[in-house]
Formats: sequence, C-alpha cells, structure tokens
Amino acid sequence: MTENTLINHMKTYLALSEEESSEILTFFDYQSYKKKETLLFAGKQCGRLFFVTKGCLQLYFINDLGNNKTIQFAIENWWLTDFIAFQNQKLSNFNIAAVENSKVLSISFSNFQELLSKFPKLEKYFRLIYETAYGAALMRLKYSYSLSKEEIFFRFREDFPDFVQRVPQYLLASFLGLTPEYLSEIKRK
Amino acid sequence: MTENTLINHMKTYLALSEEESSEILTFFDYQSYKKKETLLFAGKQCGRLFFVTKGCLQLYFINDLGNNKTIQFAIENWWLTDFIAFQNQKLSNFNIAAVENSKVLSISFSNFQELLSKFPKLEKYFRLIYETAYGAALMRLKYSYSLSKEEIFFRFREDFPDFVQRVPQYLLASFLGLTPEYLSEIKRK
Repeated sequence: MTENTLINHMKTYLALSEEESSEILTFFDYQSYKKKETLLFAGKQCGRLFFVTKGCLQLYFINDLGNNKTIQFAIENWWLTDFIAFQNQKLSNFNIAAVENSKVLSISFSNFQELLSKFPKLEKYFRLIYETAYGAALMRLKYSYSLSKEEIFFRFREDFPDFVQRVPQYLLASFLGLTPEYLSEIKRK
Repeated sequence: MTENTLINHMKTYLALSEEESSEILTFFDYQSYKKKETLLFAGKQCGRLFFVTKGCLQLYFINDLGNNKTIQFAIENWWLTDFIAFQNQKLSNFNIAAVENSKVLSISFSNFQELLSKFPKLEKYFRLIYETAYGAALMRLKYSYSLSKEEIFFRFREDFPDFVQRVPQYLLASFLGLTPEYLSEIKRK
C-alpha cells in the first residue's frame, strides 16, 4: 500500500491513530503516472497539491527558446505544486510532469482546507515541511551565487547521491543550470 | 506600540483575543537596530527568528571575493532567519544586518517551540507564511532562469515599488545579481 507512505511520513512529525490515518487518506486521490506524463499544465488552474509515494516529479517551465527549465524535483515523501497559484487558486506558472513512472497522492484545494480544519494538528506537519523547503530554497540561492557550476554538481551529488543516478542527465543539467555536454564532462573527471 | 504590528499581522490570518495577544508577545524580545548593525553572524549559532516591525533587514553572505551577496530582504511584517540552521539549531550560513534603522521582534528557538505548543493555532499562521515564502522562492528561481537582468529589475520594481526607493542601490544590485553600475544604467533608461 503506497498510500501508507504519506501516513508514515506524517507520523515522523506527529502521532496519528489508525482511525485518523484512514480518514486522512479519504481526502486524497491516488493515481499512477507514466514517465513524461503531465500532472499540471502552465496556464491552467492550479487545483491540486501532489505528494510522491513512488517515483519522481519535476516542476518546470518552457522558456522563450523552447527549453525545459527544471525549478524543482520531488521524489518519495516530497510535496509539489505551484504553491503561490495553489494558495490563491490561480493559473499555474509551471508544468509538473513525471520523470519516471510514479505513484502520486493528490488533494484538491477545497479538500486541503477541509483536511486542515478537521485535523488542525496537520498544520504543524505542513508548517515544518514548508519551513524546510523555504530554508532549502534560500540555501540553493546561496549556492547559485557562490559556487562554480562544477562545485554545484559535486555538492548536489554529495547531498542526493541516489538522485543523480535516477534522474535523466539532461534534466539534472537543466536543474543545475548546466548544458548536458558540460555535465557529462564534469562527470567524466 | 510597534509590537502590535506582529499581533495585527497574525490577526489577518486568525482570531486572537486581547489576552492571547498579550501572552504571545511575552515570548518575544524587542530591539532596535541601527543601520548596518548585525543581528546574526554566519558561523555562529542560529538561535533566533526575527520579525520586522519597522525598517528593513537583509540576509546575506560574503563570497570568496569578499563581496556581499544578498539572498533575501525583509521589510515590515516579514520573518527572517537562516531557517535550516534555526530548525536544526546549527551554525548560521548567513549574516543578517539592518539595511536602515529597524525595530525587530525576535524569538529564541526554545520560546518558539513553547509558543507553538501553547498556541497551536499559530501553526496555521506559520504554515501560511512559509507556504507563501517557499512559493515565492520558486517564482524567483523561475525569473532568474527566464528573464534578462533588465526584465528582472523592471518586474521587481513593479512588484515592490516602495522597496526600490528605500533600499540602497548597491544592495538592490547585489540582490538582483547586477553590478551597481549596470543597475544605474538600467534606471537611467
């Protein structure tokens, strides 16, 4: 039961009874996506928040030159959406697609509000998730200002060794702001 | 009473009685900082979370060339710290300094935990604050990938007109990833 991935993740932050766990899951939809399948389209209503139970998603946009620019990856136990658009129920600034075959729980905006009002203790869970994500985004900005492209890759590989193995190299290059050619040159070293 | 800035900000997200408001403020310290004064030092324990009631703070680091790189500004009603270091009670990766004379409420890590356990409804307030901050950080990464330096400045001025007036130009340039010379050239256009 990959749905249990979410409950187990929540339980690392707070206590949940069997009954609560079952009820929490009723707020979510569960879906499998094929590699390269799109879950959220830029320019369309951003109605859902996604939680990866298996696989990998990417948040990206297409720039003026038609290139795919990856802003964020999400692997198991990560949440992903266009958070600003989701919070304000606006059109998404990003696409989300499956990087590999993935299993995903998702929740609509209205269900998310209802879930939190029914289980206020989940506010703490999401507060901690977002606190970490925001802090990590600030660190990422620091790296982008202070490290060379090569150092960014080595630090990334140190922090997320499995990730570097799993993600297609052209996506990893896009995420790190490298050309695929330059990335394979660094890796050869 | 600039302390009320915090209570008023919290009240835009949730209801607080007079009694609760007074008690919440007892968890905070209140301090004034002169322009350029440092509140948090990189390499020192990151023990406090800051809320600006008046003025402006910057989160920055010094790169290998000795240049000040601004990662984040905080004006009235913004929270600021090295969130990863604060959450894990580690050494800070950043400095925080006052950009102008500023009035700041701050809370220690242990008081923050106590505050949230005494007033669990504040979890929602911080969840929403961090959700917005994280979403905005992802949008900022998008801009940095998709817009020219010039477009980044114009969008920033559109989003935060007061800010562009208030912040010293060399700091604004550092934040936007421009040289001060290039920034004044853009502004002359």
